[in-house]
Amino acid sequence: MSDAIVTWVDGQRAASVPTDDRGLQYGDGLFETILLRGGKARFLEAHLSRLASGCTRLAIPFRGESELRAEIAAAAAQAPHLAVLKVIVTRGSATRRGYAPDGEAPRRVVSLYETAALAAELRAGVELVFATGTVAEHPGLGGLKHLSRLENVWAMGEARAAGAFDALLRMASEQLVSGAMTNFFMVRAGKVLTPPVDRAGVAGIMRQVVLRECSALGIVAIEQSLRAHDLATADEAFVTNARIGVVPVRRVGEHAFHMNTLARRLADHVEALDA
Amino acid sequence: MSDAIVTWVDGQRAASVPTDDRGLQYGDGLFETILLRGGKARFLEAHLSRLASGCTRLAIPFRGESELRAEIAAAAAQAPHLAVLKVIVTRGSATRRGYAPDGEAPRRVVSLYETAALAAELRAGVELVFATGTVAEHPGLGGLKHLSRLENVWAMGEARAAGAFDALLRMASEQLVSGAMTNFFMVRAGKVLTPPVDRAGVAGIMRQVVLRECSALGIVAIEQSLRAHDLATADEAFVTNARIGVVPVRRVGEHAFHMNTLARRLADHVEALDA
Repeated sequence: MSDAIVTWVDGQRAASVPTDDRGLQYGDGLFETILLRGGKARFLEAHLSRLASGCTRLAIPFRGESELRAEIAAAAAQAPHLAVLKVIVTRGSATRRGYAPDGEAPRRVVSLYETAALAAELRAGVELVFATGTVAEHPGLGGLKHLSRLENVWAMGEARAAGAFDALLRMASEQLVSGAMTNFFMVRAGKVLTPPVDRAGVAGIMRQVVLRECSALGIVAIEQSLRAHDLATADEAFVTNARIGVVPVRRVGEHAFHMNTLARRLADHVEALDA
Repeated sequence: MSDAIVTWVDGQRAASVPTDDRGLQYGDGLFETILLRGGKARFLEAHLSRLASGCTRLAIPFRGESELRAEIAAAAAQAPHLAVLKVIVTRGSATRRGYAPDGEAPRRVVSLYETAALAAELRAGVELVFATGTVAEHPGLGGLKHLSRLENVWAMGEARAAGAFDALLRMASEQLVSGAMTNFFMVRAGKVLTPPVDRAGVAGIMRQVVLRECSALGIVAIEQSLRAHDLATADEAFVTNARIGVVPVRRVGEHAFHMNTLARRLADHVEALDA
């Protein structure tokens, strides 16, 4: 992305990776998208913890956390008021051809981008569509923010073609998973519901923050299997990610939501957190 | 992969790509694995045709086919007797952050690797396991040899852990798809059956060659939905890819196959093709 302020590859100022990197070859790696606000990396520990856990699950022997922390601090020191830090950890340069991992040394890519404040009209609510196709049900990969994201690319292309903000992903079982770039929540009778992400989708940091803050605010928040027809019973819906925080949804396909009271309350609450 | 004889990136001798390449960022691209034998790229037109078709389906405006042909010719001219050419076409450097494509200019990576003759013991038959997890049913992406291959990486890890050659992938519907690095066939009462690849898996070039050559040899070959229990009714099974050709399977999980007559006939036939 032409607008990166700075990029480090394994600690060196650089803007390229070897063509034999398994991130490029096979989407074999993980990433984090961290919002920097006023020189502070929001929810940094949660991001680093998810990254470490993802590496463990994929058996990527990532040992660069202290170097990564130093790079994040260096980036934060030179970041504009609002910025996004993208951290990629790949399995590294392949030591032989073929899908099977083979004891590679992980590679770390850190890039800093300026970003703009959220457009004010998003607070009024966004529209979603349903993505065609389904996403895989895979306990090994479910929840991971991995690099094999072509399903998300495809779904975001569908969302854009429909003039929508995001596209809701489903498994073959018809269970809702998430948006292509967000996690999805609905509100029913004052309770906040969101699909589990243990078998598909990404376990978003902002999703985790919202679940935790609901608890702190005395709002019941539950992970629960949801299907498209459940939207008919929802009073509100909203989507989340680390970049946008909480954004109300005013329509998903045929389902319109005329309230966003709780979504806006949570949006304001999360925005105001000193984290 | 440390053993690439030569790599070109968009026609330049180079061995790196920008970190903003969407192939790395999102697995947003396609690849071909072409076997070079005696200085000839086997089934080249089929590979180039699949690549072009995949780019069209992903709306990647790839225009570099004549340059790619020249690179393949240059690689073939310096290749050892047996070599593998890996061609990657990504959507290119992202013009902005986010999954949605945004009019990027595609990038082409061509790498040449020496490879060894197939181990003789493979002709006696290989063992497969069933991969855990499922792969997505997605008409937009089904059949594409795209770069988002973490499911295959995971499954090959499972295969290797079990001492198996490959792992069979299934959709949530229980329908068989393919191996993680091969296409899968079974033989029942003299008929060759293979799962369709329009909703998942990769439409392999060797799969296409086998279907075509069966027809030429008067062998009935059918694309047909298959489930694990269908293996109990099979006389033979085999797997294919461009690198290995046709390789008999002697066991898939509990199912043992004691014959490989037709598989070996097809293996010999395909090996002998002047293509």
